[in-house]
Amino acid sequence: MEYSEIIDIFESHDKFLIITHKSPDGDTLGSGFGLCYFLREMGKMANVVNSDGFPDRYDFMYVDYAPQEFEPEYIIAVDVADPALMGSGLAAYQEKGVVDLCIDHHISNKHFAKLSHVEGDTAAAAHILYKIFKSSGRKISDITAKCLYTGIATDTGCFKYENTRPDTHLAAAELMAYDIDFANVNRRMFDVKSKGRIKIEQIVTGKMEYHLHDRCAMICITTELMESCGVDQAEFDGLASIPLSAEGVVIGITVKQRHERVFKISVRTTEDMDASAFCNYFGGGGHIRAAGCEIRGTLEEVKAKLLERAEQVLGK
Amino acid sequence: MEYSEIIDIFESHDKFLIITHKSPDGDTLGSGFGLCYFLREMGKMANVVNSDGFPDRYDFMYVDYAPQEFEPEYIIAVDVADPALMGSGLAAYQEKGVVDLCIDHHISNKHFAKLSHVEGDTAAAAHILYKIFKSSGRKISDITAKCLYTGIATDTGCFKYENTRPDTHLAAAELMAYDIDFANVNRRMFDVKSKGRIKIEQIVTGKMEYHLHDRCAMICITTELMESCGVDQAEFDGLASIPLSAEGVVIGITVKQRHERVFKISVRTTEDMDASAFCNYFGGGGHIRAAGCEIRGTLEEVKAKLLERAEQVLGK
Repeated sequence: MEYSEIIDIFESHDKFLIITHKSPDGDTLGSGFGLCYFLREMGKMANVVNSDGFPDRYDFMYVDYAPQEFEPEYIIAVDVADPALMGSGLAAYQEKGVVDLCIDHHISNKHFAKLSHVEGDTAAAAHILYKIFKSSGRKISDITAKCLYTGIATDTGCFKYENTRPDTHLAAAELMAYDIDFANVNRRMFDVKSKGRIKIEQIVTGKMEYHLHDRCAMICITTELMESCGVDQAEFDGLASIPLSAEGVVIGITVKQRHERVFKISVRTTEDMDASAFCNYFGGGGHIRAAGCEIRGTLEEVKAKLLERAEQVLGK
Repeated sequence: MEYSEIIDIFESHDKFLIITHKSPDGDTLGSGFGLCYFLREMGKMANVVNSDGFPDRYDFMYVDYAPQEFEPEYIIAVDVADPALMGSGLAAYQEKGVVDLCIDHHISNKHFAKLSHVEGDTAAAAHILYKIFKSSGRKISDITAKCLYTGIATDTGCFKYENTRPDTHLAAAELMAYDIDFANVNRRMFDVKSKGRIKIEQIVTGKMEYHLHDRCAMICITTELMESCGVDQAEFDGLASIPLSAEGVVIGITVKQRHERVFKISVRTTEDMDASAFCNYFGGGGHIRAAGCEIRGTLEEVKAKLLERAEQVLGK
């Protein structure tokens, strides 16, 4: 879609509902609230919804937000690649064609909305929105700019990952012209962890095993371990990058127990190894640097299978 | 100085020695090697020196570097704010006026060189060099661009910290046009740690104490702890950011034993507290968010003094 067509949609409707994806991150929330504030500043009514609510961690984007009372006339999903990602709390919107417009940057987008605007080469949905807003020539407020910056910074690991493009930096440079206190945003996004998370990372890192001459690092998170920590289960998400943080490691494996004899495996690799091929061998899949699979058996059996395969790939 | 004057210096001399600061980081090395390659591509002879040698961690900048045999004709220090920072291995160059030109971004630069070009508002010395190189209209090679990007990324915490400026992002955007594999550079700079460092962070984090309703976090690193880890002492540097990483903490204190009854204190604060004022109270000083002091006594006495003062400042 042309950006002007999207601006036409904004101008020709009055009451917008904005849907963000479950387990919300900085990009879906930054996109959702950025769009909400932009529409309200156009004189429209707009609300943001999330199946899981809005986490405290990102409250700098919505500390002054209050939902408005209205019957939605136009529904926009942002950063939602698949209707299932709306979550159970928003099941009513998951049927094909209920959402009017989806703005997304996932090349895998399922095109479930009546209209889809997908830019697979743009690092963050918030960056697409910035380009749309900018094309309108309308004023962008500080809080809108802060939301968009947050989305862009989050999805690029603060401009660290390879999805960062020259134009990602250009957008950041422009957004810094607003009053966004970006250093504080970044501190909250990247440098601050909950006490529970700190505890878990400490425990898990303490149990990290090195194999195959330190080229393979592995952490195992059993149900027993999770229960003994006394920490919310959600805090155990996203630990898979830890094993690959050790110098010299080319494959980092995270083994997480799902049931008695069922383990979810997350694999991260450096450029020296193909994570996707490794997981394919076990019936899983994913990307070249990050992939996953499921393996059944006892923990010892699962570990042995993983290490045997890693040795086959890497050599002794 | 005008950039053209610096380019004139490059053009009118033939044999350059480039001095980088001790305990080298990505900015001094990125600046030093970036300048070295730029000069060599101008047909000059150039070498880089460091009192502590060149760490493996940054070897992607000098894997193909070989020192040249010549008698230096012109000496340039990069990212060196104070002659003492050259280190004991380069003591011969520390006397005032021995260095011909210093290019630096520390406002505190001691102006020890015959000529000094200091831009206190530029995030990294490597960024100053990029501006100089660009102004010359000469071709910048991929390896030079990679060195400059590394310097800029390192000193801004990958564009995370408040020293990042819009023009920092613009420079990054331009440098990404070269073949620099920036994502791999960033992985090595920000996501990879030595096994020893992982172990130490794990141990230290496990001993982190929370005080004053979790607004103060403290880690204590005793000589005994350092010896029991069996890890190189240098790995114990730069742990001071750990206590402030816990959500809700406004003052993070790191207590590190120097001698039997002497402790070095590093303080980090959020925008809710003044680290410099806190350390001034104990005869130390520093910046508003990062400061330090020395306190004598037993560990228990030192901790009690720190917590008493923190409670006075923060309230019960």
